[in-house]
Amino acid sequence: MAERFEIMQKALLKMLEEKKYLTLRDLLVTMNPSDIAGLFEEVEEERIPLMFRLLPKELAAETFVEMDTDAQELLIRSFSDNELKEIVDELYVDDAAALVEEMPANVVKRILKQADPEMRRSINQILRYPDNSAGSMMTTEYVALRPQMTVEEAILRIRRQGVDKETIYTCYVTEGRKLIGLVTVKDLLLAEQDDTPVQDIMLTNLISVTTHTDQEEVVRMFSKYNFLALPVVDGENRLVGIVTFDDAMDVMEDEATEDIEIMGGMLPSEKTYLRSSVFELFKNRIPWLMLLMVSATFTGLIINAFEGALAAQVALTAFIPMLMGTGGNSGSQSSVTVIRALSLDELELADIWRVIWKELRTSILCGIALAVVCFGKIWLVDRLLMGNEDITLMINLVVCLALAATVIFAKVVGGTLPLIAKALKLDPAVMASPFITTIVDAVSLLLYFLFASSLLGI
Amino acid sequence: MAERFEIMQKALLKMLEEKKYLTLRDLLVTMNPSDIAGLFEEVEEERIPLMFRLLPKELAAETFVEMDTDAQELLIRSFSDNELKEIVDELYVDDAAALVEEMPANVVKRILKQADPEMRRSINQILRYPDNSAGSMMTTEYVALRPQMTVEEAILRIRRQGVDKETIYTCYVTEGRKLIGLVTVKDLLLAEQDDTPVQDIMLTNLISVTTHTDQEEVVRMFSKYNFLALPVVDGENRLVGIVTFDDAMDVMEDEATEDIEIMGGMLPSEKTYLRSSVFELFKNRIPWLMLLMVSATFTGLIINAFEGALAAQVALTAFIPMLMGTGGNSGSQSSVTVIRALSLDELELADIWRVIWKELRTSILCGIALAVVCFGKIWLVDRLLMGNEDITLMINLVVCLALAATVIFAKVVGGTLPLIAKALKLDPAVMASPFITTIVDAVSLLLYFLFASSLLGI
Repeated sequence: MAERFEIMQKALLKMLEEKKYLTLRDLLVTMNPSDIAGLFEEVEEERIPLMFRLLPKELAAETFVEMDTDAQELLIRSFSDNELKEIVDELYVDDAAALVEEMPANVVKRILKQADPEMRRSINQILRYPDNSAGSMMTTEYVALRPQMTVEEAILRIRRQGVDKETIYTCYVTEGRKLIGLVTVKDLLLAEQDDTPVQDIMLTNLISVTTHTDQEEVVRMFSKYNFLALPVVDGENRLVGIVTFDDAMDVMEDEATEDIEIMGGMLPSEKTYLRSSVFELFKNRIPWLMLLMVSATFTGLIINAFEGALAAQVALTAFIPMLMGTGGNSGSQSSVTVIRALSLDELELADIWRVIWKELRTSILCGIALAVVCFGKIWLVDRLLMGNEDITLMINLVVCLALAATVIFAKVVGGTLPLIAKALKLDPAVMASPFITTIVDAVSLLLYFLFASSLLGI
Repeated sequence: MAERFEIMQKALLKMLEEKKYLTLRDLLVTMNPSDIAGLFEEVEEERIPLMFRLLPKELAAETFVEMDTDAQELLIRSFSDNELKEIVDELYVDDAAALVEEMPANVVKRILKQADPEMRRSINQILRYPDNSAGSMMTTEYVALRPQMTVEEAILRIRRQGVDKETIYTCYVTEGRKLIGLVTVKDLLLAEQDDTPVQDIMLTNLISVTTHTDQEEVVRMFSKYNFLALPVVDGENRLVGIVTFDDAMDVMEDEATEDIEIMGGMLPSEKTYLRSSVFELFKNRIPWLMLLMVSATFTGLIINAFEGALAAQVALTAFIPMLMGTGGNSGSQSSVTVIRALSLDELELADIWRVIWKELRTSILCGIALAVVCFGKIWLVDRLLMGNEDITLMINLVVCLALAATVIFAKVVGGTLPLIAKALKLDPAVMASPFITTIVDAVSLLLYFLFASSLLGI
């Protein structure tokens, strides 16, 4: 599939090079806008405007929306005012608003000049809402019906207005701008009588969000209720827009990426990996690295404090990495699980005792299993196979007890900290492996030396 | 919003307790099936069948689909054959197939006995496809049109057949069972003339998947093309089913969760965190912990080999945790970024040199920045503030050089290994932090002792 697509892409690029524009155009019009946008990424900059002009108006606008920001800017700069107006007229309002948000000021000025007054008003309305809110995701183009309309009148209205609307399949019933119900095209088409009033078949137990609802919450509602679209209302329950499932899907993907980046100890990035410059990657990665490096000072201090113990029993040093590593892995398993469950709304703060109890029992199982295997491994491999006579039975016991205790500590703390972060209105994802690891490193050393000093008497 | 919902839930549960069934029923019918299913999770087991029987038939089936497997099984066991048949008749085929897949054998037998022959055939067809394939995600209930039908005839057909179909908004045009085009209800409603044949307005540049396409690929196509539904064809381009956007959204979420779990060093789980038993959590977590603990034997061996050096310069030991920790964090940043980009199809194997080049430059920047800050910190804090006279300028230099080298190694390896995993047809997510950390731990120690022995002459 992907391979066939690449072969096709090469053929098209060759046509462009050989200036076979008519054949190229005939092929382009059979393609999907996303694929055409993908093709533009492979074209040299100076040829982009030329190839873009081959596309018929509607397809051109649809392709434009799918292109990356750099190509969009390049195109707008090459457009005449008239060409720009043609594209802007074809855009859906939410796409136009997204474009305005991403372009530099002088380009924005040109876009807004070419937009008709109604579009300009809608764009400005959407841009007024905070980033990551339902208001900033929504489109103001939806089909609104009155409750007294008959099924026939409703269908007629959809036929008249539908061409400019992002979705026609869910229509909203309003009275004095207030949202009072919704009716789907399926309901309208399957209605037995054409003269049934819309209010008799509309759904009134509405699920809606307000303009300020966080986009994460919007996504959760889509994945919970399987809606095609979700109405957005203002403080007085007046319908101001709708969010469609495709935008929710994009946000769902972005939110997962953001969680993963934060869990990996990075600042979340706006751009894809290949589009990020080296300096941008550096900026996103260095803060956590610095913070964690400096906070590792503690582990250094602990080791210094127990220098005497380490000198007395040199064999102890060799197990430090294993102890810290296993502790870190145990903790990050728990924190990652809890962070994801929080993201998916499967857990809430009130569950904290259930989490602690579950992690405690799981960690005791893991701790015992690891300690037993570790004890055997140290005795068989390190002592008998490698012949390290420094490792006594007592040292082995100290290592394994510290291991079990570290695992239990790491898992309980790893499971709890994301919930505490949530309670403090912080992003739970910051409590993931890098952070947990640093705490666990210090604590595992303390536990290790505690067991060593009490059992070995040093 | 969520709070209001909880208050409502409490009121409903109280009604159930006080046996105010009629009032309860009147409220339940105004609620969304997902919310009713949520309510069932709070009800005591023995009351579930009673409350379920309050729901009218269609709402009962919709709620049933949203319930968790345990509650579903409990209900089916309490159903009479007749009640079971009523529910099964109302289910969409893909939901019925999912149910059959999750229930124990004796329950499955009862379900299949109550399903009508056509439904039974469809369920069996879907279950024949491999797990995680488009075939296992699809539903066989879609609207098929003939190319010669007029717009009017097509709408009539949708009105007649639509009630049982999961989506009516995208209709597929077939000829001798082969898929030749698609037409949306929007196109049909907005068509200017009622007697236009469907073949004149249908889209023919179709994007489809085959029954064996992996579900990850299916999800990528949804997020790329924003479809409501995607047709699934067999090897001869015959239409066998469709995948709808809501199922794609669920899979998208599941795939992200799976990636996150694997990146956290766990086996992916089928159940949510709170529903997993302690033993299931243990089973998912212990394999990687064991593997990584045992492989940490290498770090122990390296430390043993350089025991002499550590004894000669005791100050060296204190920096081991910082060095390994920073290396691990650096590596996991890169691996997590590359793994996510691979999941989103933003990167492919051919980009490996670009990744190495990008990681190399980023890691040099990070390495230098960290080394400089570390050098200052060690001198100011450890030497001057703490008065640790063991730390010489040379030791500081060894630590910072090893730090920079470790960061560079960790980032390049962290960025490359997921791509290599992909080339070897392994899941790139296994190359995340726990795995990378273990490699980096060993290498950082080697680099450290290398610098120590060459610069300090030990």
